[in-house]
Amino acid sequence: MNEFADYLARELPKIEECLRDHVAGLNPYVRPAADHVLAAGGKRLRPLLTILTARALGFAGEDIYPLACSLELLHSATLLHDDILDCAALRRGKPAAHTVFGSTHTILAGDALLALANSMVARYDKPVLTDCLSNAIMKTVSGEIQEIAHIRDVALSMDSYLEIITGKTACLIQSACQAGALIAGADASLVEAAGGFGMNLGIAFQLVDDALDYTSPKEVSGKPKGSDIREGKLTLPLISYIASLDAELRKRFTTAFKENTLSEDQLESALLAVASGGHADQTRDMAAAYLEKSGRCLGAFPDCAEARLLRSALDGMAKRDK
Amino acid sequence: MNEFADYLARELPKIEECLRDHVAGLNPYVRPAADHVLAAGGKRLRPLLTILTARALGFAGEDIYPLACSLELLHSATLLHDDILDCAALRRGKPAAHTVFGSTHTILAGDALLALANSMVARYDKPVLTDCLSNAIMKTVSGEIQEIAHIRDVALSMDSYLEIITGKTACLIQSACQAGALIAGADASLVEAAGGFGMNLGIAFQLVDDALDYTSPKEVSGKPKGSDIREGKLTLPLISYIASLDAELRKRFTTAFKENTLSEDQLESALLAVASGGHADQTRDMAAAYLEKSGRCLGAFPDCAEARLLRSALDGMAKRDK
Repeated sequence: MNEFADYLARELPKIEECLRDHVAGLNPYVRPAADHVLAAGGKRLRPLLTILTARALGFAGEDIYPLACSLELLHSATLLHDDILDCAALRRGKPAAHTVFGSTHTILAGDALLALANSMVARYDKPVLTDCLSNAIMKTVSGEIQEIAHIRDVALSMDSYLEIITGKTACLIQSACQAGALIAGADASLVEAAGGFGMNLGIAFQLVDDALDYTSPKEVSGKPKGSDIREGKLTLPLISYIASLDAELRKRFTTAFKENTLSEDQLESALLAVASGGHADQTRDMAAAYLEKSGRCLGAFPDCAEARLLRSALDGMAKRDK
Repeated sequence: MNEFADYLARELPKIEECLRDHVAGLNPYVRPAADHVLAAGGKRLRPLLTILTARALGFAGEDIYPLACSLELLHSATLLHDDILDCAALRRGKPAAHTVFGSTHTILAGDALLALANSMVARYDKPVLTDCLSNAIMKTVSGEIQEIAHIRDVALSMDSYLEIITGKTACLIQSACQAGALIAGADASLVEAAGGFGMNLGIAFQLVDDALDYTSPKEVSGKPKGSDIREGKLTLPLISYIASLDAELRKRFTTAFKENTLSEDQLESALLAVASGGHADQTRDMAAAYLEKSGRCLGAFPDCAEARLLRSALDGMAKRDK
């Protein structure tokens, strides 16, 4: 893991600088909301993946940061809009932008970040990159829409759940990796391998996130435990818990969940039951299976330092607790 | 004008078909809001300008409609978000999308239309086109932001007003014309002439719009007369009216306007005073000056049917009453 820490120490400042430089050019009225969502941190996973993939596949140029950062800006734009839709009060442990700057500035800041991300990619003069990014936006939006459409839908199937997390999270991570392969001029099979790596990693990422929502205390994760169940989101731990209940209990629980009439005590005991019943662990097991698939895609990459770093990112993902 | 009517009769169905085909591919959850804003009509000014400019500058291919329509979709996306920001109840005489479908679906439908517009342009494999569109989004958003920042700002200068309408309206119309020139492979000076034509036309378009808000009855314009003054928007007719008041009256009016304490009677009499004092006419005179500049840019175009049609569009704009 030391090699990975060294890499982060070298690359993260460049990513931050590139983000700062580009956001500095935004209209001053939306700057605060944009700065806010970016300053709240996050792991810069998407830009790191773009850079590592590009390097692993032979891209040696310096002109990778705007491309890498465009994916972080796109991600930030969706967070801004998403927080309004969810009426979320917190984002990464800090107040969500719309509670500080109001919906108007937050919606427009999201639009401005989308436009900025697009123009940063357009400057590369490579239509495949633009297409890759447009696709990512479209699929992310579709995933968010579908998630909202299924709020409190206790009949949500496993397949639909996977479709939702693929759309809202994995497609953008897939695009981050594909963009790296594309700028490296990799051949079609490597672009596909990079996409497969990102797609499976992205699904695993969201599965772990959904498990952590039932197990990670607020001090670690930055958001209150159980926010999904409170917001009416059916994620795998809850789907699996509901499936484990006997018919009568299931009927009682799903009716109350659907009608949003669970008391605070009932919510707390459901949270406990999900965690102690092994449903969060089961979700992490599924994540591990996707991480394995992701690792198999990496097999197509040349053996090099960056490919090893990507592999170690998979281990980090399997273990992450926030 | 007959030639223009013939052209519309030929091109509009193709534009509508292209819009329909592309919107049909959107996620079913956002389709209704997207369909709604598109079905509300509008003049399809932006796609028509792209097509006419491209044809005037020698583009003979059939593959112009997705490019032209991407600008209409982008415009529709900004309308969806803008209506939420304005809390507008009506759009082109019909209920605004967010009052029918809710803010969540409307925000996401706007995002989906932005992504769709981007991907339609990306498919042309011409980065200059993508750049042109990204620019348009960025400037439109900046203009909207600035407009909101100056709501009830009675100190708004003429320059700032022009900056606002340039951003929120004219830049997109400029891009529509530039996109036409770019796809035609026109040289830099013609691309600039096309941009200048669109920019001045766009400013004139918004000036006329702002004048009509004080003079055109709801049955004609589709929105209640005086919606700008009610929403606290300072547009040229009102700026010019305020400047015409004597010091005491001006102080009384601006204080009440700023604090949003004008009674319905006071609003009605201000509306009448703006119109009868010639301030709406003055605004239209200024529009005429921009239309003249726009016409001068057209001078660089080759003499052809489409250039003549563009010129007749300027006349139509000068006379428009809705």
